[in-house]
Amino acid sequence: MTELLSGILNFDKRSISRSISLIENDLHKGLSLLEKIYPYTGKAYTIGITGPPGAGKSTITNSLATLLAKNKYKIGIIAVDPTSPFTGGALLGDRIRMTELSSLENIYIRSMATRGSLGGLSKSVYEASLIIDAAGADFIIVETVGVGQSELDIAETADTTVVVLVPESGDSVQAMKAGLMEIADIFILNKSDREGADAFVTTLKNIISLKPKSEHNWDTPIIKTIATKDIGIDKLTDEIFHHSKYLQESGILEKKRKTHIKRKVCELVAEKLRVYFWDEDKLRYLDSKLEDLLLRKDNPYHLVETLLEIFRNKTHIP
Amino acid sequence: MTELLSGILNFDKRSISRSISLIENDLHKGLSLLEKIYPYTGKAYTIGITGPPGAGKSTITNSLATLLAKNKYKIGIIAVDPTSPFTGGALLGDRIRMTELSSLENIYIRSMATRGSLGGLSKSVYEASLIIDAAGADFIIVETVGVGQSELDIAETADTTVVVLVPESGDSVQAMKAGLMEIADIFILNKSDREGADAFVTTLKNIISLKPKSEHNWDTPIIKTIATKDIGIDKLTDEIFHHSKYLQESGILEKKRKTHIKRKVCELVAEKLRVYFWDEDKLRYLDSKLEDLLLRKDNPYHLVETLLEIFRNKTHIP
Repeated sequence: MTELLSGILNFDKRSISRSISLIENDLHKGLSLLEKIYPYTGKAYTIGITGPPGAGKSTITNSLATLLAKNKYKIGIIAVDPTSPFTGGALLGDRIRMTELSSLENIYIRSMATRGSLGGLSKSVYEASLIIDAAGADFIIVETVGVGQSELDIAETADTTVVVLVPESGDSVQAMKAGLMEIADIFILNKSDREGADAFVTTLKNIISLKPKSEHNWDTPIIKTIATKDIGIDKLTDEIFHHSKYLQESGILEKKRKTHIKRKVCELVAEKLRVYFWDEDKLRYLDSKLEDLLLRKDNPYHLVETLLEIFRNKTHIP
Repeated sequence: MTELLSGILNFDKRSISRSISLIENDLHKGLSLLEKIYPYTGKAYTIGITGPPGAGKSTITNSLATLLAKNKYKIGIIAVDPTSPFTGGALLGDRIRMTELSSLENIYIRSMATRGSLGGLSKSVYEASLIIDAAGADFIIVETVGVGQSELDIAETADTTVVVLVPESGDSVQAMKAGLMEIADIFILNKSDREGADAFVTTLKNIISLKPKSEHNWDTPIIKTIATKDIGIDKLTDEIFHHSKYLQESGILEKKRKTHIKRKVCELVAEKLRVYFWDEDKLRYLDSKLEDLLLRKDNPYHLVETLLEIFRNKTHIP
């Protein structure tokens, strides 16, 4: 454990990987490690990169990481690949390029799956960020396909959320309005040499202009990029620094991080309560009542009350 | 309440709508209604229709419902519209057509949003199905955009899950393999007059052939449809009846429904425990410790243990 800890603190990639695997496989076993590394965390700045499949998120992530690494920053990348049927995940080519990137000394890359663990995305991603943070990363880039719940999770986790779109995304922009406004700190229009790019920027600007100014004073920028040619990535870096400065000076960063950690504590409590509640007796009782539920001799709402009654009474008996 | 109940039992659409709204707004207030209607439920057969945006799910749902309604069946449709940024939701035209459909006496349509309520999709959808079930619907069609978690939820909720694809979906089919196999009881290739349809069917067949035969004996059919012209919908209806018969005779339907209701009870317990745990004292304590967490004077894992300790001790004092 001490070896793992000192490895992490020295940005040793094998130690980081082993620690993340430890936690992914069994959070409970990794708890003492997490408690040990926690004091070393809090220095990394987290950038969330999200958007629809095929928008070029991986390419953007790679270019951004390369540019930051050239400027002597240490970078951690967490690429969240959903194994879900319709999201597709990153193309093989992107992942190969990522592997090349990971040969750079100050870039650490980790690919994580969403599916399988209950509500697993945000949980493992958070713990993985803590480890990479403790390792001394200046920036942690979390890349995730923006579908369903995951882009909301990422927006709550990241300090700066970058939403990557392409001119073809224009069709559905009307339907996106509310959601986009809520999560995007920076918009990227990637593949901006394609037809319809300018019209799309106009549409986006109109949507941004609808944002109530009262809340805060950040003007969501729209950056045109052609990630495959590295065009626009310097502008993106500038805007991330700009946003980071804005968050810090306005006090919003602290508020954001407090909200995030509060949510994490509530999640951890819920998981503990689940394990605490569902002892063998209650699980057996539930199983014995399923037949009654199907036959409509009992109803789930009444059964839940009964289970809670058992729980309350038991906890009164030392 | 009695009025609402008798309205529901008479398939009175206003009563159904009012009851669903009641539960959506405040599950707690709707509990006694749910307990009252539960004995009348269990007769409806649930069909989940899912697939990527733009595949034509709404059109399929409309045609299927119309065909079933012509055959004197009572139908409930729950259209789950994500307000999430990238999923888009159904096009306006589809919803207008749905409104026309709802003028039919034996079709009830309800649109529900995914976002906003924590894990709200499956919860409200389940309660809405119960109400529609009690109202006497023979079939409940739950239509949801298949992205992220929602299509997994739907596969666990529905008796028969129909996955709608289009020839253009072919590109990502390799990435989808595992997930698709897991959830699809019936595949639809919609817009099957488009280029690439036959090649896509071949690809799908190959994927289906990889399915381990040991598990069960259902051969996942692939149905070619052109939903806008009502082509293939009769075949779909046949296959749904076919699958329903298979599930009943094999005993899988009962197992599926038991698993589903067990999961619902666990969800309800988790929600109750959350409310039970987070009393004012503990919430205040958590808030008072957030600063320490940010300053790394305490860590979230230790804080969780402290909170649980408070919880355990309190429950010992009557």
